Amino acid sequence: MTIENTRAGQKAVEKVFAMQQGSGEDSYARNSQPQQFLMENIIAPELLAALDNMTLTHSGKPIVVADLGCSSGLNTINNMNLILNRLKERFVTSAEVASDSTSTVLPDFQVFFNDLPSNDFNYLFQLLNEHRHSLDYFAAGVPGSFYGRLFPRSSVNVFFSSLCLHWMSKIPDDVLDKNSPAFNKGDMWMIRGRSEVGAAFKKQADLDLKLFLSARAEEMVPGGLLFMFFNGRGDSDPARQWPISSYSYEVWKCMNESWDSMVSQGHMTEEHRDAYNVPLYFRSLQEVREAISSCGSAFRIEKVMRRDTGGAKVSDLFPNIPPSELRKKTTLFMKSMHSPLVEAHIGKELATIYWQNFELRMLENKIDELILTMEKDPHYKQNSDINMVILIRS
Amino acid sequence: MTIENTRAGQKAVEKVFAMQQGSGEDSYARNSQPQQFLMENIIAPELLAALDNMTLTHSGKPIVVADLGCSSGLNTINNMNLILNRLKERFVTSAEVASDSTSTVLPDFQVFFNDLPSNDFNYLFQLLNEHRHSLDYFAAGVPGSFYGRLFPRSSVNVFFSSLCLHWMSKIPDDVLDKNSPAFNKGDMWMIRGRSEVGAAFKKQADLDLKLFLSARAEEMVPGGLLFMFFNGRGDSDPARQWPISSYSYEVWKCMNESWDSMVSQGHMTEEHRDAYNVPLYFRSLQEVREAISSCGSAFRIEKVMRRDTGGAKVSDLFPNIPPSELRKKTTLFMKSMHSPLVEAHIGKELATIYWQNFELRMLENKIDELILTMEKDPHYKQNSDINMVILIRS
Repeated sequence: MTIENTRAGQKAVEKVFAMQQGSGEDSYARNSQPQQFLMENIIAPELLAALDNMTLTHSGKPIVVADLGCSSGLNTINNMNLILNRLKERFVTSAEVASDSTSTVLPDFQVFFNDLPSNDFNYLFQLLNEHRHSLDYFAAGVPGSFYGRLFPRSSVNVFFSSLCLHWMSKIPDDVLDKNSPAFNKGDMWMIRGRSEVGAAFKKQADLDLKLFLSARAEEMVPGGLLFMFFNGRGDSDPARQWPISSYSYEVWKCMNESWDSMVSQGHMTEEHRDAYNVPLYFRSLQEVREAISSCGSAFRIEKVMRRDTGGAKVSDLFPNIPPSELRKKTTLFMKSMHSPLVEAHIGKELATIYWQNFELRMLENKIDELILTMEKDPHYKQNSDINMVILIRS
Repeated sequence: MTIENTRAGQKAVEKVFAMQQGSGEDSYARNSQPQQFLMENIIAPELLAALDNMTLTHSGKPIVVADLGCSSGLNTINNMNLILNRLKERFVTSAEVASDSTSTVLPDFQVFFNDLPSNDFNYLFQLLNEHRHSLDYFAAGVPGSFYGRLFPRSSVNVFFSSLCLHWMSKIPDDVLDKNSPAFNKGDMWMIRGRSEVGAAFKKQADLDLKLFLSARAEEMVPGGLLFMFFNGRGDSDPARQWPISSYSYEVWKCMNESWDSMVSQGHMTEEHRDAYNVPLYFRSLQEVREAISSCGSAFRIEKVMRRDTGGAKVSDLFPNIPPSELRKKTTLFMKSMHSPLVEAHIGKELATIYWQNFELRMLENKIDELILTMEKDPHYKQNSDINMVILIRS
């Protein structure tokens, strides 16, 4: 593989990016308990309140809900059920809705499951089929990037996007260009905290969020709800995505070091390693607000807030896993999200070696002991901040 | 495998039925030239004329087209392009549409690709992605049986269904019940022409078509178009699905005999063989008309007609294939449609043996010589009749 090929591959994130397919041990479907924990404990109350505050009218048209970046596990179905059940309750019980209606019959509900074409829609559709007797909406899958238009004008009532908008549409060009000051040599992300690299990532992430918002502004019905949450950061410096010495930081350091091992073990050149970067960026609240203002008056802001995950411990995020297996579980969790990107860059065979290296690093770093030490600290907080953004189309 | 299991499997056609996935040698995507030939040469002129006769208004809502039973090859995309391009042309050029419009901007177009959840949507979505620069509509996949509701009320402008409605929702119960006079012992379909079996298939096929039509009547916008074509038959007797000694009849006889070989070779019991039937039925025009009348005044009939495939020869259906390879090509064609059903019944390993038996039968029957003899006969007609049905929602 030449570096040119590699760069092309890295730029074409859209073609290869997905959570790990199917239902195997390292699949996303079997390793998304942390996402479920966040949804149930941190997000759901805000989501339900936002749905209750929406203006709903019974116009004879279907009520359309879209999950942007749905991936392919049971979380997807559960999240949509939460939304659909609440909307239905409102039509059944709310006097305000009933008085607008021309009929006592419920409107039809339609749910669009969106993700990149590389997502495992076959698996998602099988899951939907297994649960179809408890789902009373019309389901459809929409393949495509949410950084562009996906739906007809004014056709969607509720957009929901869970833990996806921190994934970027592409790796910033500068980060892969060895003649640029932002060239990210020896780092697969922003573990080393270089400010030029942070600035390049920020620029792309700003553009992405603006593209996302302007597409949604066209697709939503007036009064429609856009509910999204994604990993955020507290530090104003884009290059400081996480506090150093946090659990997540340690895990990512292991990933970075595993790339170095691939070079030192002779599996690849430094150039080949340097051409790999992860298309991920955690925004500050300030950055989110700026992107929304760039859309003019398209949206009314209901809420833009950062939530830390509070008292959530690693053992809350991975329930029913004994502490001794947290290292293994964390490895599978990272594989469930990063395997497709790693394989697209170095192929299946080298990817196997890469993940062996990673597991070894995790062991050497005694990450399981780190977790246990952290958990014993009563002031410990799981350091993944969440940006929660609730917008209404004007 | 017990017979009970087998029967359950046969009844649950919906769970296992699909064209062969992916893009391998025996995939549907690589063996659907006959479908393409029929579309281009027999169907397209009628389809385009029907689109031209539709009433189209520019109401600000998107124009929605749905392909029911889309499968996962390039044909699907080409068929939708044919429809979409014609609809767009009408909006651009037709004075009648322009005068109704409140704006000169084209409406948005949305296309729903529907098939059973067992269809290879991942492959279809990759194809759509590869062609996305030439497609200017919003695409979505809808997993589910078209023998039930798939879309919100009054939400679809054009339904298109190509060569699917001869596939039934299930095998009729009687055909699998050894205590019934319709028990189809020693036959995987209607090759032996037994009248009780034909009647049982007809009953299920009638019910299926009524369910299909009543679902579409609810889903279509008033004035919307339902265009469908599917294999039909000329004989009034349901048990005579094809003229004996036709090319297709010979091929199917080989399939039937291959099941017998599986028993005589000791791979399965007679009972296990008898529990396999193919969920296929070719309707007469009379049967189609009766199903439409059962919907009351939901539809206005534009056309119900039977088209034979005229001068189409086997070598037209499989272009660029030397006559000496027609036998192999026919084998792959049958595999592309029947493999998933065969595998669901007997598993991958026995299915391999089954298809080896089939290939051998085809050779022993000198089917390639048969094809060549037929083709030399100037009166020869490819004997697959097509029912073409064009309905407008009242």
